[in-house]
Amino acid sequence: MERCDLLGSISEEPDRLTRPFASDAMRRAHELVTAWMREAGMEVGRDNIGNLRARYEGATGAYETLLIGSHLDSVRDAGKYDGPLGVLVGIAVVQELHDRGVRLPFGIEVVGFADEEGLRFGTTYLGSRAIAGTFDAADLSRIDSDGVTMADAIRAFGGDPGSIAKDQTSEGEWLGYCEVHIEQGPVLEARGLPVGVVSAIAGQSRHQLTFTGEAAHAGTTPMEHRKDALVAASVFVQAVADYADSQTGLVATVGQLTVRSGAANVVPGEVTLSLDVRHADDATRLRASKHLIDLAEKIAKQRGIAIATRQVSENGTVRCSRRLTSVLAQAAQELGHPAIQLTSGAGHDAVEMAGLTEIAMLFVRCKGGISHNPAESVDEADVAVAIDVLVRFLELLAAQP
Amino acid sequence: MERCDLLGSISEEPDRLTRPFASDAMRRAHELVTAWMREAGMEVGRDNIGNLRARYEGATGAYETLLIGSHLDSVRDAGKYDGPLGVLVGIAVVQELHDRGVRLPFGIEVVGFADEEGLRFGTTYLGSRAIAGTFDAADLSRIDSDGVTMADAIRAFGGDPGSIAKDQTSEGEWLGYCEVHIEQGPVLEARGLPVGVVSAIAGQSRHQLTFTGEAAHAGTTPMEHRKDALVAASVFVQAVADYADSQTGLVATVGQLTVRSGAANVVPGEVTLSLDVRHADDATRLRASKHLIDLAEKIAKQRGIAIATRQVSENGTVRCSRRLTSVLAQAAQELGHPAIQLTSGAGHDAVEMAGLTEIAMLFVRCKGGISHNPAESVDEADVAVAIDVLVRFLELLAAQP
Repeated sequence: MERCDLLGSISEEPDRLTRPFASDAMRRAHELVTAWMREAGMEVGRDNIGNLRARYEGATGAYETLLIGSHLDSVRDAGKYDGPLGVLVGIAVVQELHDRGVRLPFGIEVVGFADEEGLRFGTTYLGSRAIAGTFDAADLSRIDSDGVTMADAIRAFGGDPGSIAKDQTSEGEWLGYCEVHIEQGPVLEARGLPVGVVSAIAGQSRHQLTFTGEAAHAGTTPMEHRKDALVAASVFVQAVADYADSQTGLVATVGQLTVRSGAANVVPGEVTLSLDVRHADDATRLRASKHLIDLAEKIAKQRGIAIATRQVSENGTVRCSRRLTSVLAQAAQELGHPAIQLTSGAGHDAVEMAGLTEIAMLFVRCKGGISHNPAESVDEADVAVAIDVLVRFLELLAAQP
Repeated sequence: MERCDLLGSISEEPDRLTRPFASDAMRRAHELVTAWMREAGMEVGRDNIGNLRARYEGATGAYETLLIGSHLDSVRDAGKYDGPLGVLVGIAVVQELHDRGVRLPFGIEVVGFADEEGLRFGTTYLGSRAIAGTFDAADLSRIDSDGVTMADAIRAFGGDPGSIAKDQTSEGEWLGYCEVHIEQGPVLEARGLPVGVVSAIAGQSRHQLTFTGEAAHAGTTPMEHRKDALVAASVFVQAVADYADSQTGLVATVGQLTVRSGAANVVPGEVTLSLDVRHADDATRLRASKHLIDLAEKIAKQRGIAIATRQVSENGTVRCSRRLTSVLAQAAQELGHPAIQLTSGAGHDAVEMAGLTEIAMLFVRCKGGISHNPAESVDEADVAVAIDVLVRFLELLAAQP
């Protein structure tokens, strides 16, 4: 918990936690986490995309490697636990093995992913994509808000953008991937449970929409002559909330909205916004996305405003491994915790890792289900449970034939 | 017109015209305009706020000074004529007197105001306030989007923030203030007239509103638990447009809207927006402003969202001088142009100057009534008419007892 606090103080901004991909704050975070990884008996390195990767060797002859990880980047004005908790629990678990002098019949790699939130380049799962082999080289030419390309950002951070594809390796083979993460939802708190086992991660669709009307003088342009892009966008924002409200289990969010050339005395000519749609059922999510995009086009047309829509990403619902999940559930139960199964509404690096190997996730209760917010809060006792469950999970895995 | 093109190419941004207060682009604009002012036989100086001020001496014994001016700053992604046209017409008129070797019984000061649009610091009429003696020293601590205070910006531009109050001077007394400006509306074009005489400038109220809900994770926070500041703000934006639509002669605009910590996967926690309300009748404008602020509070309350409102500025309707306006109308008529009278929907530096001396304004027809937009367009022949009318206006003034 102290380490979460320490790590939470490393930010690009003075008064709030903002730790983007390949930033100076991330470099300082790496220095700190590297020291903790070494203390736990691990060899530490950084791959080309900027993932921090630490290896704890298995017993002689160990061939497979279990990945334990989460991400070290954050959203803007973030909480301290979304991401870092999973990395620090991984280190704590290895520390316990190291302290006891235990070597398992498989190696462990603890990874702190370089970018999951996509704050800097509007991408998703940049770090885990690099390891899973799904990194898209076209993303290297994306630019951040300062005009820096991703390729240059990677170089400045010490990586070689041309060698990212080579990082998809392990010594031997991957045994699986396990991620500990705060729940970011209200279920565990409502049930009074410290941890829960994830059965699936809900799919998500992301779009970017641009409404283009006509910039005009706010004092001299009569209301009936206006083509106000912000009014059209506002009708859409409200329609998104109303529609999602009416559909069980659906969440839809306009999280970004930018008025181009925004000035108090100018009728807005162009508005760009993001649309994020999620549901545990793929067909329902795709139907909802299509409905909302159609609705945006209808709203724009009615107001004589042009619209451009672009799909940013599309991730289907991902099921966790039955085998690993049942071992994780057994570990929790042996320690006296009912192992309820949850669907994750949030996406995680595990989504990408599912393309590489079997995945499992353990959720830790968080206060009020709040995340992506400085009010994110986790109980120390619950973190202790998560560490114990993970150690037991490793022992059970080690005992399997 | 060539000078308008030249000046229009001096910008802070490569592909569009954006010339903020005390910027490097403004410094370059000053160099160019200074050369033109000197060519017209004027002494040029810059006052502390950063107004470019040029004096053309009157005949021996001339005691009063007529101010002719407009502003040299622009909105973001602006047109070439809003502001600069009035300064360049002023210089052209003096050039004609100078070429003819004419000295009038009053001096002329041509002023290029430092800031009318308020792009950089969210202020209004910064330049004309300094001369009119209504500059508010509290504004010196305002900061721009890079965290630079207005006081530092003024110092960097060569002014002394502490001496602004001393700049409210002329040799002798002010005779009046005359401003030439594009109409920014459709009336002259509809009537087929090159110029029109302004009878009054409509009042305007500006407010800033901040909706504060709760930032939350876009994937895990059910719709019914959200306090989405952007959804509340969107309901308000739409309500503003609907209300203004329903009231004759009222225009109301939300031109700026910023989502704090905006990210695609975060439910917006805080939204700040601007509200601009204008009407030729003060009582109607004040009633409309109050109605809309009340409405914002109601919308926020219904959604469990906090709201803060702040009045940014409040300008009553300003009537032009009967005496100067009738001389301007006579000048137009003598040159064969019907002198129709217009109300200005846009605010102008003349609003502030009205507190110092008598004011008059001449509008020049512009294409489609478009302004605050790169599509701003003015006919060369109409500009020639404006110059001729202004020269005749000076001759008529000079002939008055």
